[in-house]
Amino acid sequence: MAKVAIIGFGTVGSGVFEILNNKDFTQKTGERLDVGYILDIRDFPGHEAERYMTKDFNDILNDPKVQVVAEMMGGLHPAYEFTKELLERGKSVVTSNKELVATYGPELLQLAAEHQANYLFEASVGGGIPVLRPMMSCLLANDILRIAGILNGTTNYILSEMIHHGKDFEQALKDAQEKGYAERNPAADVEGHDACRKIAILASIAWGKFVDYNNIPTEGICDITLDDVQYAEKLDSVIKLIGYASINKAGKIYARVSPMLVSRQSPLAGVDDVYNAIVITGDALGKSMFYGRGAGKLPTASAVVADMIDCVKHLKAPKRCTVWKRCGDDMMLPCEEKETAMFVRTASSKEAVLAVFPEAQIVDGVKAGEIGFVTPVLPEGALDARLERLEGIAARLRVLEIE
Amino acid sequence: MAKVAIIGFGTVGSGVFEILNNKDFTQKTGERLDVGYILDIRDFPGHEAERYMTKDFNDILNDPKVQVVAEMMGGLHPAYEFTKELLERGKSVVTSNKELVATYGPELLQLAAEHQANYLFEASVGGGIPVLRPMMSCLLANDILRIAGILNGTTNYILSEMIHHGKDFEQALKDAQEKGYAERNPAADVEGHDACRKIAILASIAWGKFVDYNNIPTEGICDITLDDVQYAEKLDSVIKLIGYASINKAGKIYARVSPMLVSRQSPLAGVDDVYNAIVITGDALGKSMFYGRGAGKLPTASAVVADMIDCVKHLKAPKRCTVWKRCGDDMMLPCEEKETAMFVRTASSKEAVLAVFPEAQIVDGVKAGEIGFVTPVLPEGALDARLERLEGIAARLRVLEIE
Repeated sequence: MAKVAIIGFGTVGSGVFEILNNKDFTQKTGERLDVGYILDIRDFPGHEAERYMTKDFNDILNDPKVQVVAEMMGGLHPAYEFTKELLERGKSVVTSNKELVATYGPELLQLAAEHQANYLFEASVGGGIPVLRPMMSCLLANDILRIAGILNGTTNYILSEMIHHGKDFEQALKDAQEKGYAERNPAADVEGHDACRKIAILASIAWGKFVDYNNIPTEGICDITLDDVQYAEKLDSVIKLIGYASINKAGKIYARVSPMLVSRQSPLAGVDDVYNAIVITGDALGKSMFYGRGAGKLPTASAVVADMIDCVKHLKAPKRCTVWKRCGDDMMLPCEEKETAMFVRTASSKEAVLAVFPEAQIVDGVKAGEIGFVTPVLPEGALDARLERLEGIAARLRVLEIE
Repeated sequence: MAKVAIIGFGTVGSGVFEILNNKDFTQKTGERLDVGYILDIRDFPGHEAERYMTKDFNDILNDPKVQVVAEMMGGLHPAYEFTKELLERGKSVVTSNKELVATYGPELLQLAAEHQANYLFEASVGGGIPVLRPMMSCLLANDILRIAGILNGTTNYILSEMIHHGKDFEQALKDAQEKGYAERNPAADVEGHDACRKIAILASIAWGKFVDYNNIPTEGICDITLDDVQYAEKLDSVIKLIGYASINKAGKIYARVSPMLVSRQSPLAGVDDVYNAIVITGDALGKSMFYGRGAGKLPTASAVVADMIDCVKHLKAPKRCTVWKRCGDDMMLPCEEKETAMFVRTASSKEAVLAVFPEAQIVDGVKAGEIGFVTPVLPEGALDARLERLEGIAARLRVLEIE
């Protein structure tokens, strides 16, 4: 029997309670998880969780029987301070708080290791999709070479509506808001910040070094138009917001969030609506993909509860935690050195384009007064230099390489 | 430091050696895996593994320093006897031998549990794709409702060639044989037996009861024609060989391997060539999919090595193993009670079809003298009874439900 606590009784927190309250894991896991406390500043009169509610964090901190805590409050503070104090007492903490993990991951993982506790955060990336734990266990025999993921359900829904139903960005966003898939202030999603935290976490796990999200160039999808979608179609591709990270032979890490042209041959091209998917390429395995619901109350809560069970199973023999070293920025590959192909729309003529990129794949007939083309694979710096020789560049999107 | 042994130096066994010999897992895992012995009846003069070779199983069995063994010999005997003896000595065993797991899983898991050892077999399903361990850990908070997978790369390659390149079954099979994707005697793959072992293992893990593959109705793809492929196309679907298992509210398990009509809306529809993918539906998570290379030397070996590392990490605190109870056949749902929609080709007229199935979705214009149609969802027994009222039934394929 293990006593557990939930901090924050919002959407996911109440989902965690719902699962713990309704399911008995004794047979499946050999462990029973009993909710001892739920911390929230609000009252929930009449709720079946009412008898567990407390407004005092110290009730949880000072109860030696509480061994595992789900931090479901979100935001940096006081989530950071609470997590820190819990780990210092040797209590394991699980979370879906990507902001916190992407900001204070190194400190919190270090604290967990020092105090024989676990800090687990499967639900912080891909909601309920199992991806972090498989990376840390099943893929251990692989050197991970590349990660490319559709990490944000809101933007994927918007892009899917643009691609399949011809809505423009504004219409699709409004639709997403009406369906509850996008917040009233959608900036964190549509500007790519949410995906940025997630690719930072994935990259940190893949390579054991802390990849600071502040060092990840991030573009959202606000500027994507139906013209872009149509060009993509003509190139047998779709536009997806991709969180991307790779490592080169010298051990330099490259990471970026941006809308990319994804060939229909890629398994990511068929990932639509609010679904997320992460393609991980390992040196032995090749590419594998993890697909599912990247958000939502019960999907996310189910990942949190799985982490809680994992903590309970390892109380007497704590797992050897990942520790993320904070390294200098020079562990990152400068963007201009990253090789990529680019899709470009330009007012220049076909002849002008071919003079600069003799190998370019040209697409026309989408919009009067311009053409589109795909460059060969070149370092971004070299691409930029060549593109300066063209006029009226309306859009440029990186092309996701087919593996 | 852990001493490990490999039994069987074929394709996957030599891949395991290659990974263990070339990679140092000390930093990643805190453990070093040293190959102590490789058992094979053959000689490998000049091979870098030569110094580890032995022909005497007792060298491994009697060396108390050997704690983890990779059984890579395949087949039932003596793989079963070797595994049994190793587990009885408290040595952990990992394998990719689906035949053995699907036949003697209950006994071997029980032995492992009794002797504080692990018996792990991630590589037995989906090659290198992480799926068994995520099911047993990440999805623990879910009741698994349904599994549908493309579990055999050979047949998926053949069907992909039929769908995308218009080859007929014989041509596509020949092509697969030339490329080394199919064996000279392709029966185990094309008749569905390989997929059958794999869905039996998946179902056993999902529901903690041993699902005997002998109780799983199994059809292969030998009878699939280009006409079927064309009908599927007209229904915005593709034909895939699906290993399917589900559980009903009364706890009865249904399992089957058969070619099915898969809507292009399903993420399984886009899984082509030799790739495998498994969709798992949980009550909290909804559907998630695991995708990757289902076979091949290094992909499979990477899963074996990950299992070996897992064993080494749990030497002092063995994992609580799954144990599979052997139950009576009455735990299985009789096929005639399983609800499904069916695609049928018949020489009967449209009117005759609509008289029997007023809700049928009719497709014609594919082949002279016949029409195709999709029935509503009904128990198979009821479908069969109604289908008896039609004439000249040329093909019938189950339709995978869209979740």
